[in-house]
Amino acid sequence: MTDDRHGPLCVLGMGLIGGSLLRAAVAGGYPAWGYNRSAAGVQAARGDGFDVTDDLAAALSRAADNAALIVVAVPMPAVESMLSAVAEYAPGCAVTDVVSVKAPVLSAVRGHGLGDRFVGGHPMAGTAASGWPATDPELFRGAAWAVGVDEGTQPEPWTRVVRLALDCGATVVPVVAEEHDRAVARISHLPHVLAEALALAGAGGGELALGLAAGSFRDGTRVAGTAPDLVRAICEPNATALLDVLDETLTVLSAARDLLEEDGSLADLAEAGHAARGRYEANERWEITDIDPGGRNWLERLRTAGQRGGVITCLAG
Amino acid sequence: MTDDRHGPLCVLGMGLIGGSLLRAAVAGGYPAWGYNRSAAGVQAARGDGFDVTDDLAAALSRAADNAALIVVAVPMPAVESMLSAVAEYAPGCAVTDVVSVKAPVLSAVRGHGLGDRFVGGHPMAGTAASGWPATDPELFRGAAWAVGVDEGTQPEPWTRVVRLALDCGATVVPVVAEEHDRAVARISHLPHVLAEALALAGAGGGELALGLAAGSFRDGTRVAGTAPDLVRAICEPNATALLDVLDETLTVLSAARDLLEEDGSLADLAEAGHAARGRYEANERWEITDIDPGGRNWLERLRTAGQRGGVITCLAG
Repeated sequence: MTDDRHGPLCVLGMGLIGGSLLRAAVAGGYPAWGYNRSAAGVQAARGDGFDVTDDLAAALSRAADNAALIVVAVPMPAVESMLSAVAEYAPGCAVTDVVSVKAPVLSAVRGHGLGDRFVGGHPMAGTAASGWPATDPELFRGAAWAVGVDEGTQPEPWTRVVRLALDCGATVVPVVAEEHDRAVARISHLPHVLAEALALAGAGGGELALGLAAGSFRDGTRVAGTAPDLVRAICEPNATALLDVLDETLTVLSAARDLLEEDGSLADLAEAGHAARGRYEANERWEITDIDPGGRNWLERLRTAGQRGGVITCLAG
Repeated sequence: MTDDRHGPLCVLGMGLIGGSLLRAAVAGGYPAWGYNRSAAGVQAARGDGFDVTDDLAAALSRAADNAALIVVAVPMPAVESMLSAVAEYAPGCAVTDVVSVKAPVLSAVRGHGLGDRFVGGHPMAGTAASGWPATDPELFRGAAWAVGVDEGTQPEPWTRVVRLALDCGATVVPVVAEEHDRAVARISHLPHVLAEALALAGAGGGELALGLAAGSFRDGTRVAGTAPDLVRAICEPNATALLDVLDETLTVLSAARDLLEEDGSLADLAEAGHAARGRYEANERWEITDIDPGGRNWLERLRTAGQRGGVITCLAG
């Protein structure tokens, strides 16, 4: 690593997130290369001038030789095989990921003995589109990027991952894996489930209903345009947390339904929902300034700050 | 009425829809004036140069003198009192409305003996904002505008209402009241209910969850920003149809929940929802060209065409 600020980067997976990350890192001055399983993705990335191979061993050996930070950017079902290869070809490298769920990744990482080199990550960005053609170096600009502060996290890889996220234009939310997974069940996975159900309800009304549909239906079903396999890869690994919030929501909807039937009133839901949206709109992130990676209680302090809405927008040094 | 194409217009209610309609009509060359209950709304509209009064009797007497088309543009709870005034001051005028539900309006209209002069309407446009400051003469451009073809509809007021909708830049979907109400329960009222529930689920995750929220949560909760009283005024009059589709959706969500718990799979919902969203995106309106207001079976023919996705984009004459 010749430049501490922009250490080499090896991105595994050239989908929307991995490909956009490679683009953003290269644009930001990082020496960076990628791996992709499908030849089509490799060709597309190479066609745009990026250093991408379908030879996983080669990409990882190069990472080992250059002390690169490895980014696992594949859907959860493919994470195990990536980690096996990392453990084989680049066991000394720092590793992060951009997978939508964190506890299962952390568990797999520890299973491969990579726990002290790993820092989980999850940029909260995406579109209903996928694959290299949808990649965008500006995808992460202004986005939140969850970065793990789980027990055992080491300061050096943590700092490197935070710096990468900041260099991509994101703000960093420090969070432990289980709390991340419960949070994204609420604000990312449940939206997918409700969008699918709403799309079904609309289509159940046939051409008349679909022809009358306007903004509320269009926006409410947007993420139902995501490929079903990707929705499953995002939501299914977080089934426990998703089931909890889905049950909570079924209870809320059933209560609203009963009040509507009995009293003709939607008052409780409309008022509570409006107040909740107001909380979202008014929600202000505040900047965590007293960051001291490796200092006393640093992980616990960052975790507490993240719970209270704190974010990291710059790093000293 | 001096100009058959742009007959005088009297709009009752200067909210988002009524105010935007007055603006669009004036921009389109209609002699048009309005009534609003609140002095603040009247002042705001007058300040923008529009002919608006808080004297309902005066506005309606002027409508009677000029054979104006009266547009009832108040929320459902205020419709009865508007119709009473119309029956008193302008019983001979053609009447339409822009209320979000059609069967209750039609029933009220018939109760006031105005059935043969009435044609229901519902422009499928809006924002989470409300009141005169949110009005926009371009609000209806490209929107669907449901126009009633209920039994007993007379050709003259029907033609006038369709022309107004087209002059505002909308396309007309012919539909009977009950079918309209069932359709909008699916594509307008259920989206409100699910948005409120999603907002609640997100806020239940506190500052951490709200700070991680991205596009899927933002879009899925957008209409939860609508004032609760307006959501209630929109949804509650359509309680029966909304309960039907809400129950249907609760069944879908419960089945998805059970499969997720038992098999860890969201496959059924993800695939069906994606296909449904695909139907929405691919849904193409086609133009109804053989329109013959007052001709043999004209109402039934338009109703059938509307059910199959047909729209009216221009009128001869």
